[in-house]
This record gives sequence, C-alpha cells and structure tokens, in this order.
Amino acid sequence: MYTVDLNCDMGESFGAYKMGRDEEILDYITSANIACGFHAGDPSTMRKTVRLALEKNVGIGAHPGFQDLTGFGRRNMDISPQEAYDLVVYQIGALDAFVKSEGGKLQHVKPHGALYNMAAKNERLSEAIAEAIYKVDPELVLFGLAGGELFKAGEKVGLRSASEVFSDRTYQEDGTLTSRREPNALIKDHEMAVNQVIRMVKEGKVKSTQGGDVSIKANTICIHGDGPSALDFAKYISKALRNANINVAKISDYLN
Amino acid sequence: MYTVDLNCDMGESFGAYKMGRDEEILDYITSANIACGFHAGDPSTMRKTVRLALEKNVGIGAHPGFQDLTGFGRRNMDISPQEAYDLVVYQIGALDAFVKSEGGKLQHVKPHGALYNMAAKNERLSEAIAEAIYKVDPELVLFGLAGGELFKAGEKVGLRSASEVFSDRTYQEDGTLTSRREPNALIKDHEMAVNQVIRMVKEGKVKSTQGGDVSIKANTICIHGDGPSALDFAKYISKALRNANINVAKISDYLN
Amino acid sequence: MYTVDLNCDMGESFGAYKMGRDEEILDYITSANIACGFHAGDPSTMRKTVRLALEKNVGIGAHPGFQDLTGFGRRNMDISPQEAYDLVVYQIGALDAFVKSEGGKLQHVKPHGALYNMAAKNERLSEAIAEAIYKVDPELVLFGLAGGELFKAGEKVGLRSASEVFSDRTYQEDGTLTSRREPNALIKDHEMAVNQVIRMVKEGKVKSTQGGDVSIKANTICIHGDGPSALDFAKYISKALRNANINVAKISDYLN
Amino acid sequence: MYTVDLNCDMGESFGAYKMGRDEEILDYITSANIACGFHAGDPSTMRKTVRLALEKNVGIGAHPGFQDLTGFGRRNMDISPQEAYDLVVYQIGALDAFVKSEGGKLQHVKPHGALYNMAAKNERLSEAIAEAIYKVDPELVLFGLAGGELFKAGEKVGLRSASEVFSDRTYQEDGTLTSRREPNALIKDHEMAVNQVIRMVKEGKVKSTQGGDVSIKANTICIHGDGPSALDFAKYISKALRNANINVAKISDYLN
Repeated sequence: MYTVDLNCDMGESFGAYKMGRDEEILDYITSANIACGFHAGDPSTMRKTVRLALEKNVGIGAHPGFQDLTGFGRRNMDISPQEAYDLVVYQIGALDAFVKSEGGKLQHVKPHGALYNMAAKNERLSEAIAEAIYKVDPELVLFGLAGGELFKAGEKVGLRSASEVFSDRTYQEDGTLTSRREPNALIKDHEMAVNQVIRMVKEGKVKSTQGGDVSIKANTICIHGDGPSALDFAKYISKALRNANINVAKISDYLN
Repeated sequence: MYTVDLNCDMGESFGAYKMGRDEEILDYITSANIACGFHAGDPSTMRKTVRLALEKNVGIGAHPGFQDLTGFGRRNMDISPQEAYDLVVYQIGALDAFVKSEGGKLQHVKPHGALYNMAAKNERLSEAIAEAIYKVDPELVLFGLAGGELFKAGEKVGLRSASEVFSDRTYQEDGTLTSRREPNALIKDHEMAVNQVIRMVKEGKVKSTQGGDVSIKANTICIHGDGPSALDFAKYISKALRNANINVAKISDYLN
Repeated sequence: MYTVDLNCDMGESFGAYKMGRDEEILDYITSANIACGFHAGDPSTMRKTVRLALEKNVGIGAHPGFQDLTGFGRRNMDISPQEAYDLVVYQIGALDAFVKSEGGKLQHVKPHGALYNMAAKNERLSEAIAEAIYKVDPELVLFGLAGGELFKAGEKVGLRSASEVFSDRTYQEDGTLTSRREPNALIKDHEMAVNQVIRMVKEGKVKSTQGGDVSIKANTICIHGDGPSALDFAKYISKALRNANINVAKISDYLN
Repeated sequence: MYTVDLNCDMGESFGAYKMGRDEEILDYITSANIACGFHAGDPSTMRKTVRLALEKNVGIGAHPGFQDLTGFGRRNMDISPQEAYDLVVYQIGALDAFVKSEGGKLQHVKPHGALYNMAAKNERLSEAIAEAIYKVDPELVLFGLAGGELFKAGEKVGLRSASEVFSDRTYQEDGTLTSRREPNALIKDHEMAVNQVIRMVKEGKVKSTQGGDVSIKANTICIHGDGPSALDFAKYISKALRNANINVAKISDYLN
C-alpha cells in the first residue's frame, strides 16, 4: 500500500486582509503549513488557523519565511546562515506556542517561498535551517524539495525529512523544477497533474520536459491554496489519490 | 531570612542598533526580561541574550510588548483582550524556542511598557494576558505591578505571580506609582532608592509621597538597564541588599 | 445649484493582498483618499492607484494613518501631537511624490481611521495635523468630520477645510456620529442613506436618532469601498444626487 | 581651483535608538544623506535632521534604502526595477515633505547600502532609480559610484549626476572598490585616506591595489558618520582638503 501526505500553505491572511479558503481546503489535506507572521500571518490568524487544523485533525507545520511582508517572502534576500537559523527558531517558536496552547503538537517545518527555494540550492543555508529545527525539537519533520539541499541537510542533522513534490509543476532532467519563467513550467490540467503525482508516488519517477524519466521520492505533495480553482483541485486530487489506492495520511503518521 | 529577585529588561538591541549594557548588568541581577521582537529585540539579539543569561545562570523571562518599534512599546494602544492574548502567546513562544534550543528553561513573563501599565489597571486585559501565559505553560511565573490587576489575574488563573516593586519610583497612598509627569516621581539618590526597597522587602511597607505608610509585597525588584548610571546602580543595589541580609535569588528558586 | 464632493478610501491593497474594487468605484466618486503605506497601501499600490485616479480625473488625497498595519490603523494609539505632525508630513510627502511623478497635483488630506476619529475630539492633535498639512502645502484641502475639532483646526490654520458627512451613519443630537457599538449606528437601506445625504446638502440638516433636527454642513460625502454592496451603492448615490439636482464635483473645483 | 563635495549619511537614529553624531558632523560636511524610514530613520528623526542640516546650510539628500530595518538595508534583496522605482519615489517624497515644511529645498538623492551597491552593477535597476528621481524632480542631483551603472543612468536620463568616491576604501584596477571581504579593503590611516582623495580630486587618478593608476572622477567624497573616529576624521578631512587648496562646497553649488 502506498501512502502520501498532502500539504498546503495556510494562515496567510493578515489583519484586515483575507487570503485563501483555509477552512474548506483543510477538509482535503493532511498537513498544513501555517505562516508565522514574517511573510504573512499575524498572531490572531495563527491562533485561528491552528484551532481549525486541530479540529480537522490535520498535521500542523510552521512555515517560516523572510521578514518581507510587502514581497510575501517571495523575494530572495541575501541573509547569512546564522540569520536564517535565528529567524527559523523564532518563527517555529511563535507558532508552536499557539499549537501548545490549543492542546496540540507541532508536526513539521517547511520554509516558505524564497527561503525554501534558496535553501534547495544552498548547502550552508540548508544546514542552518535544519539545525535550527533540530535544536528546537528533534522530533519535528522537515519538508524539503525532492533532491534538494534542504532535504539532504535534514537527513544529515538527524531529522525525519520529507521529500516534497509538486503536483502542478513540471520537472527538468536533473530533477529540479522547471523555472516559472519558462512557458511549460506549470501543469494546468488537473488530470495530468494528478497522474504525474500518482506515478511519482507509485513508481518514484517523473517524466522530465526533456522527455526522459527522472527518479524522485514523493513523501508529501504540495498543493496551492490560492487561485480560483484551488478548492476544486484539492477535492479532486484528494479523491483521485484514494481511487488510485494511495493512502493519504499526515506525514507524522507514516514517515520513519 | 528574606529573599528577593532582582530583574532588569534585556535584549533591547535591534539590528544595527545597540542598547543597554546587558553583558555587564547580567552579573548583578537574577532575572532577565528579554524583548521578543515586537517593541525591541530581533531574533539574533534574542539568541545572544538568552545564551548570555544562561551562562550567567540568570532566570529568563519573555518580555512581550506592543508591535510598535517606533514607539518602543511605550505608547498605549487600544487593543482588545483577545489581541493581547494572541500577541503574548506569540512572543512567549518565539523567545521560548531560543531558550529551549540553547538548553534552558523559560522562567517568567513580564509584559513591557504600555502593555504592562495598561494591564495593571485593566482587569479584562490582565485576565487575557494571564490566560495566555497559563495556556502556553502553567509553570511560568507572571510578573505584575504590586497591587495591580495583572498580579491579581495571575493568581486567579493559577499562575505563580510575582509582586513587583520599583526601586527608583515613589508611591502614592493608594499603592500606585507616582505618575512620571509629577516632579517627585523618580528617586535619583541611590541610597534612598535602596533603603525604600529594603523596607519593602523586610517590612512590606513603603512611605507614600503623602507621608503615610502603604502595605506592599516585594517579590521582585525592577531596575533599569539603560541610562548612564544603570550599571553602577545594579552593582550598588545588588551589594546593598546582601549587606542588609537579604538573599538575592531568581524568582523560580523561592516563589511558591 | 447645490454641489457636493463624493469621496472614498482607495489604494488599500498591500503586496499580495488585494482589497477593494478601486478601478470600478473610481467611476462614481470625485475624490479618492489614497492610503500611504502606514495602515495600508505600499509604494507600488500607491503608484497604480494615483495613475487610475488621474485617468478618471478624480481628485487625489493623502490618507495618512497610524503605523499599525496589523490593526489597519483602526486602533487608537496614544501618540503626541508632535508625532502626529511628523507622521502626517511623512505620508503626505510619500503620496505627493507619486502624484507629481505621474503629472498630477495633490488635492486634499484626510486622516484615516483611529487618527481621524481621535482628531475629531482632540483639539491639540487636530492642530498638529492641520499645521502639518499647511506646512507641506497651504493649498491642500483638509477633510474633517462635520463639527469636529479637525475641521475647526483646518479653518484656524488657514486651510480650506471640507466638512465631511457620512451617508450610512446615524447622528446624535449633538451632531456626532452614533457609536458603532449602538444597534442603530448604521443605515443599511440605500434609499434612506441617500435621502439623509440629500437633506444634509440641501437643507444643512440631519435628523438625529433622538428625533430632533441638527444643523450640519456637507461639503463632502464619505462612502465605503469595501463590503459586498459598495460598488452598487457608489453607483446608486452618484445617480441619486444628480437626480436631485445636486452637482457632484471634486472638492477643489468648488470649495472656497 | 578644485572643488569637491563632502557627504555623509545622517538621520539613522530610529525611535529610542540613537545612531551617529549628526549634529557635530554636520559642521564639517557639505551634503547630508538622510535616511527615509525604510532601512533607518523615522518621521521624527527626519524632521529633526532636516532642521539641523538647514541650520548649518548643508545640502540635503534623500537616502532611500530597502525596507529591511533589521538588516539596516545592507542585505541584497532581489527586487524588480519597478519595485526599485516605487520605493525610491516613495522615500524621496517622504523626505522632501520635511524639507519643504522646514522651508528648504531637496538637493540630491543617494541610494543606501545594498541598493546602492546593487545599482552600481545593474543597468536596469539603475535606470529605474534614475527615472524615479527624474520623475519626482528633474533638478535633483543623483549620487552614484564613480564609474558605476547608477552614475551612467543618471547622466542618460538627464539628471545632474555626481561621481562619488570613497576616502577610506581601496580601489581595483578596473575602478571598482575592493570587496570588504578582502584584507586590504579599508584605508585606516587618516593621512593616507586624505591623500588618496586629494589626488582623485586634483589628478582624477587613484592607485589601485594592483599598483597601477586608474582614472576616476571625484565630484563628492563619502565619509562615514559612525565608528569611534568618525568625528575626528570629518574634522581632519575637511581641514586637509582646504589646506590642499580644494574648495569644499555642496554639490548643487558647483555641479553643472
């Protein structure tokens, strides 16, 4: 029996600004990456989102990002590994306090946006992030891009590390994601997206845009919570995976 | 044998901005209130300050404040009790993650500046703050103004609560601090300041500016870490208390 | 012939967060109050909103607020008159640079949210705000609540001051707005709202919730840009005013 | 007769945090680059600094930087040219409002820190910055690194552009500054620093660390306002230039 986790970014509202359809999407995912107040989210949003995730028995993760609210944490910032360590410790702690105060337990950490992408390619940055997580709580699961430096750093430091794949992105023959600047970066067809994911889970392979197969490990699948069809896709992929005899479960329930 | 805790605000530097002589003052105090990034402090400063406090065996407290860096958390903000709850949970968690990652244990929470002052007079605000602390960790000690609402709310919710007195401030006959707008609000003479404190600890009394004695409980004494004579006064009061046969110890070592 | 200005808050989006239907509402109003980056708005949003307003020949105003993005500038902050002066100068300047760089001319200033409400009742705060506006550009028009301190301070300092009324709020017999905490604070019926406004413009009177008439001057009418029926109401009031033979024009075209 | 401008960063205090000895250094420089609230500075500090500069007849410049207070604007951020344009317009406007309200006239714009350094090497970024300045006020002077892209972009867009040199930095044979990561990047000896500058002004040449002479244009010299010897060096260079028969004057007084 195959098993996979389905994760989505959550809690990205800020003050008077609403973003995403968290409450509805939580019905279809197994792990939620909750923004921690730096690139999105605020203390009240964090509390509400944690409560919702606990009610729906969804695994809760901290989603630390750059302190760049204007840029939503999507702009690369040239920070030192030590600065990365510090901002990850800070944000994990902030979210964890809400989880504990609501009676839950923090499951995982997934860096956000530019921090995630930079880490995937930068060994020292990844080691700093992995160490930060380990120091706060060695039982936390680290989410990193399949084949990337962050995933490797997690394994190295002794964390359970989840290899993350993307349902709606195409892959290069070296296993990296096709840049969003390329016209064929996104898979917009829901069926194609799900078929790619099913093959990654069952066969550990994905067809690259160059045509050949690439090996890939799929512990957790990222779906997107914004955009007009986000909720539809969440429902669709959740059902399609189960129809393909893939168990969908939160990462802490099955990752060794 | 009398015992009292000596606390001081710490970790108020921010990025390139330096404030306070933390490292030196830590030699003379028993509890440190560390800023959590809202009114002062940043993740790197928090890590460094936590590490210093642990090295010097000083009790570590979270010092949550308003999200008003420009005003250093000293300007009243009309927030709801729920908003106070949320920002206290957030900031405790952020600091606690540094304490845990450095191998320590968080001892106490003391709200900062305008939040502290508003809470002292506002029952609902105080209850929200006390509940936030209790929910994150019921073993934490709450620091509140002697006789104020925050101290009472701490007791009510089931927290160990420390009654805090000020060495360098005068008191009114109703037990409140003389407003800083009054000319006689501050005690600038070090010997007078210490004598007031010694009497509060030993006799549970302080002479008000109106001339009569007022009952007061002194579990912890606040001293200030900024200003040109801060370090001198820290040395002076630390020595003077011991000379008066008062044991100076961190609050968690003796408060029931 | 009666004339009135119709104003609405604009440019309240922030980074990835969208708010309001600015482009559509700009077709029905004559003055736009554009957020300046403290309580809402960011530099890119400001540029886009200024450009839209110029294309549609709508008068442009700076809409300075408290530096409280989390609270959207709606929470009272205990700032000094000098601090109010400084933050108003800063925010007017920031917006004005976009107006000038797009070839336009700044028309007015309307403080936002809690700053507006606090100023209406606080003479010293209002004087500081009015002086800030005058010092930056004495030709700017100040928008203040009808009968409030801000309006008076504007007149006193020598600014053209626009007396602002609200279409969807009820009034007390002393001319103040009914508190939003009261059940009858809002007028939800569009026809009633417009009839109240028409009478304010033509007769200079409004019926208070206590039943008697109150004198009121209506130079500019505030409508709201958020909420599901905002666009509908903008269309409705714009047409209804003209049907009642009231000329709708931007404030700088007719205020002496 | 040779003439050169002497500039220094100013107004970098923030709220309760003090930085620099602005008032004293203003006695020795001719142009002040005033922080605009993004990487440093706040509205009150801006007003006070503008007032001081006007009292001492020092040319006033806007010093826009990244919105990264924690990093003091010194960390590269991957922003788009459009974002650079927008944040420069915003910050020039904010400062200009204080200058106007105090009765002065803004003289120049010098980007800060990482924005300055990135622009020196990036043509598109520089063009966006130069265009932003030109659109706000075509009479402003742009300060850019001698030989860098920003200086070139300023000339291209039609701004008076000042070629800036550094007194305390060494140069490479391609005319760029030696990276601070290199051991010989800084010139700590005051006399050597001044001699380098005098030669740049009089001969238009500087000796590179590789040993050969490099052509360089020195319209304005940057000195640093922080550090223990900043004030001493300001006095020293100011006097030494005059002793070398170099006129020290603000840039707007002599640049064509």
